Amino acid sequence: MGKYLMNIPLEDGLDQYLNEIKDLKKLEGEFIDVNDCLNKVTCEPVYSNLSSPFYNCSAMDGIAVKAKSTFMANEQNIITLKENIDYIEVDTGDPIPKDFDAVIMIEDVLSKENKTAKIYKPAIPWQHIRCIGEDIVEQEMIIPSFHKIRPQDIGAMISARVQNVKVFKGFKVGIIPTGTELITKEETPKVGDIIESNSKLFEGLIVGYGAIPVIYPIVKDNYNQIKKSVLNALDECDMVLISAGSSQGREDYTHDIIAEIGKVLIHGLAIKPGKPAILGYARNKPIIGIPGYPVSAWVVMENIVRPTINKLTYKKCSNNKYIAAKLGKRIMSSLKYEEFIRVKLGKVNGEYIAMPIKQGAGTITSLVNADGVIRVSQNIEGIAQGSSVKVELLKDIDEINKTILAIGSHDLIVDLISSELTKNSLGQFKLNSIYVGSEQGILALKNDECNISPAHLFKLEDEDYSKYFIDEDISIIKLAKRTQGIIVKKGNPLKIESLDELVKYRIVNRQKGSASRILLDNFIDSKNIKKSSINGYKREESTNMSVAKTIQNDDADCAIGIYSVSKAFGLDFIPICEHEYGILVKTKNLQDDSIKKMLDVINSNPFKQKINSLGGYDLSQCGEVLKYEKSYN
Amino acid sequence: MGKYLMNIPLEDGLDQYLNEIKDLKKLEGEFIDVNDCLNKVTCEPVYSNLSSPFYNCSAMDGIAVKAKSTFMANEQNIITLKENIDYIEVDTGDPIPKDFDAVIMIEDVLSKENKTAKIYKPAIPWQHIRCIGEDIVEQEMIIPSFHKIRPQDIGAMISARVQNVKVFKGFKVGIIPTGTELITKEETPKVGDIIESNSKLFEGLIVGYGAIPVIYPIVKDNYNQIKKSVLNALDECDMVLISAGSSQGREDYTHDIIAEIGKVLIHGLAIKPGKPAILGYARNKPIIGIPGYPVSAWVVMENIVRPTINKLTYKKCSNNKYIAAKLGKRIMSSLKYEEFIRVKLGKVNGEYIAMPIKQGAGTITSLVNADGVIRVSQNIEGIAQGSSVKVELLKDIDEINKTILAIGSHDLIVDLISSELTKNSLGQFKLNSIYVGSEQGILALKNDECNISPAHLFKLEDEDYSKYFIDEDISIIKLAKRTQGIIVKKGNPLKIESLDELVKYRIVNRQKGSASRILLDNFIDSKNIKKSSINGYKREESTNMSVAKTIQNDDADCAIGIYSVSKAFGLDFIPICEHEYGILVKTKNLQDDSIKKMLDVINSNPFKQKINSLGGYDLSQCGEVLKYEKSYN
Repeated sequence: MGKYLMNIPLEDGLDQYLNEIKDLKKLEGEFIDVNDCLNKVTCEPVYSNLSSPFYNCSAMDGIAVKAKSTFMANEQNIITLKENIDYIEVDTGDPIPKDFDAVIMIEDVLSKENKTAKIYKPAIPWQHIRCIGEDIVEQEMIIPSFHKIRPQDIGAMISARVQNVKVFKGFKVGIIPTGTELITKEETPKVGDIIESNSKLFEGLIVGYGAIPVIYPIVKDNYNQIKKSVLNALDECDMVLISAGSSQGREDYTHDIIAEIGKVLIHGLAIKPGKPAILGYARNKPIIGIPGYPVSAWVVMENIVRPTINKLTYKKCSNNKYIAAKLGKRIMSSLKYEEFIRVKLGKVNGEYIAMPIKQGAGTITSLVNADGVIRVSQNIEGIAQGSSVKVELLKDIDEINKTILAIGSHDLIVDLISSELTKNSLGQFKLNSIYVGSEQGILALKNDECNISPAHLFKLEDEDYSKYFIDEDISIIKLAKRTQGIIVKKGNPLKIESLDELVKYRIVNRQKGSASRILLDNFIDSKNIKKSSINGYKREESTNMSVAKTIQNDDADCAIGIYSVSKAFGLDFIPICEHEYGILVKTKNLQDDSIKKMLDVINSNPFKQKINSLGGYDLSQCGEVLKYEKSYN
Repeated sequence: MGKYLMNIPLEDGLDQYLNEIKDLKKLEGEFIDVNDCLNKVTCEPVYSNLSSPFYNCSAMDGIAVKAKSTFMANEQNIITLKENIDYIEVDTGDPIPKDFDAVIMIEDVLSKENKTAKIYKPAIPWQHIRCIGEDIVEQEMIIPSFHKIRPQDIGAMISARVQNVKVFKGFKVGIIPTGTELITKEETPKVGDIIESNSKLFEGLIVGYGAIPVIYPIVKDNYNQIKKSVLNALDECDMVLISAGSSQGREDYTHDIIAEIGKVLIHGLAIKPGKPAILGYARNKPIIGIPGYPVSAWVVMENIVRPTINKLTYKKCSNNKYIAAKLGKRIMSSLKYEEFIRVKLGKVNGEYIAMPIKQGAGTITSLVNADGVIRVSQNIEGIAQGSSVKVELLKDIDEINKTILAIGSHDLIVDLISSELTKNSLGQFKLNSIYVGSEQGILALKNDECNISPAHLFKLEDEDYSKYFIDEDISIIKLAKRTQGIIVKKGNPLKIESLDELVKYRIVNRQKGSASRILLDNFIDSKNIKKSSINGYKREESTNMSVAKTIQNDDADCAIGIYSVSKAFGLDFIPICEHEYGILVKTKNLQDDSIKKMLDVINSNPFKQKINSLGGYDLSQCGEVLKYEKSYN
């Protein structure tokens, strides 16, 4: 009869079971209104339908001005501006009309009367303006797949005008109480009766596990009746729990029923109480036999059923609310306030790294993207880079452990690696990016502040890069040759054909160390052009996407960027040169599970096809790994 | 206009606010079906309507026997029992008929055939029987008031035949989004519009805080319209959140509206983001003005709104899932299993103490009463008393910090102190008891394993007690003189009038160190009676209540006990002597907040009236505190 009880250690039994059931029936997805998706898990990444803000707006109370008309102002030369011509009044959040390009804070306006305003210092173009897409850029991925939706995620999706979201359907767990001695709580108990209460214990626990409990009527100790109820529950639910009858007594049928209709993997765990648990499956769905004594049942629920449900609903579970991490970037803080700094976290060579991200109070994505929060006390002026900090977690620690932290240069390819990695690993592995340009990224990689660094690739011999890696072996995962050039408006109305023309119009720049910035700086150095003469030189965006969005909105005429992004935003493009783009990783980390999974993605055909469809990429060397030994230098 | 922003540190502001609102309108209670009470908070203690088990039942598979007929069995004298006369077959959980009083495990039955069973060793009366009330005794308090109901609590209540439970009504939080620029997610956004998303952020967070969110329609920046919406929400909800309009701008009306209809306590916190929060109340209900920027709003929700809701719904919140504690009693464990040991926790002189409680897998109250669980690995034989252990918390750590751990002698007075203390402090302070008799309790107090020790009081000069406190000052809080005597069945059918008769009948005994046991042992010593000649001498119960229940069920004829319990169970009582009962506490701890609160309860009239109504107590010295200095010895 196979009722011999095993005595398998808990962890071993659970591992064995979770491994066996991982290929059972997968949960289906459904589209639901974003209003109703709290605590559900996304099946697919969610993309923005609208930038946030979707118009340039004032970040301060004050006056919107034309920066050009303020350049001559200083304390000796007070300038008087006329309302509705030279300036308009704006409150925080008010749109900035097309004619204006800077905001002066009300505190910096000398006087304002008779429809004139006096100012005593110039405005830098775009100062105190929250530009289009500062928080969210249209088409940007805002929520990854396999992500449990939190309140801040709903806020971000609504801001991005997302109406529906595809989530996994609710996971139903059927509960079948068995036992001839059982009565309901409404019946009058006689000697020999037991009031059935375990189903309500299970119900409450399952609600806590984020699944949907379904309690079936009590079944007497009758093989065929129990079997019938189990088959019915298997039809209606995603998982079935049979309460009691799991031991070796004369009327314990659970084992034999599961063995008849499916497979018993484990019967008997080395735990006390809870030993006679049965772990099996049938009809492609897990079935667990739970001992009848309430404490035994509770132990099996908490230690077997909970992780099983988490596994099958793609949820992580963990108890850590705080971790210690090394601060990856200096935090400046005011003595006036206790500050709440949002950070991304990475685990690099066994140590957690906390990287502060964009901190504006208006950027809801800072709550979505952040992995944790650091509280900086009121009496502290800042925290030095490299300090150990306490981080309150906003995500599960297990998720952070399996996330590749990328710091470096932005390209749509990285977004694609991220979404494919999540999809291929069923949410096991993720990629989290911070965009600071190639040079800063490589510095972060050297300092063990990230796992990988996406960068435009010069040769390692170049002074630029080799200086960072004199002590360690470094590898380059090649991705693509990409076409760099000038992004201009549709139809190229200003007839811009080369960098010579570019510098004459309103541009938007990239941060230092980015390929676009290096191209521009090399050009203006070679031509001896003064940086201050270029309109927009100081206006830095950190991704190709926000550059394109700025031009699409006519807040700049042109900029250096890449073809794929230009195409995605329906803009025109003048190619100038090609350069290589790839991922730097320390050679010793090439064998990490997460990096190996990422390489699988990079070498897969669906991935390459998706990149090709973006346009402007040469993938002939994609996936090649070049190893450079430290002795190379 | 009062729009000057303060800059109050977060902790100060929150303390000030929680202190001011603690006297606002209290939540009402309602009776609901026990099936529907998950995560709700009890208004009143819940008492058992039925013992669990409510009949004596077998704890093993085997045969039920009459212990007397097995006494002569040994390996040289194998005894043959006849089915249905000398024994019946029983499975685990089967009721034990009145004629039988012990179970022999099937493994210890030599052979069973032809309706006879052969045995080779005697059965001790009541061995392998789960007696009535082993888990829950009828009338016993099973769930305290101000307790958030967990799945195991529901299981215990159903087992105790509780149908309805009085819980606090759901706490409704009204959310009013304000701002002329706001549109719903279904509208088409124009330049200048903002899609309203904060209400959904709040909704999700409030669900997580265990309250009920109510979202009201968007209100434009119009003083009277906002005021009207706030007044309406105050009518319908227990608390109101006004989203945005909390700063000092021209159209920020939140401050002035709260000030007009109620009171603003704080406007401006020293936090970033989140500074312009407004903390006020009106119509006896809290109102909080939340800044409009999403991250600012989130910080205020998590750090102000969450603790406010917890305070007003009597919930605790904490992030610790594990603590380190000192083990108060040795744990024995099997090398065959990983064991899950349920413990009560106390905080004694700054250190957590973990005391293992009853471990039967069938005792659901072990999950209800336990504060935590210790996992003992499979490869460990046990853990020594005094070891440091890791405890997984089942209750909030803050609740444990404010709980008085009592170890000692049981009396209904202690249950009453416990329920009055919880009621008077609105759930702030609790009393948690472990009953081991007076002597073991005093030993625990000496070793800092509990905060107080309820005991029958001999004089400290008596060798029994003084030996324990040679190093420290000890105080006695007098409670009552109580009448000790013999509990017998209604009408005293056996005409038992003194201890001379008691020892001739079936008794039930108490554990060593209890007043009842000392009385009995002194008597039989003085009369030179052999312990083994007394039927039931070895059958120990740890409380007066379970003793009374045993007699009520006719599983014993008489026992030594106290009057109040005898009365509660409708039994008769023959008084023998009086002794004092009180609480021992180290003198240095008399000033602890929790002990002071307990003394307030002991000195209150409602408490004394309730004890008087139990009967059998002389309260003339109740509440007197006698201090003994260590030099006394």
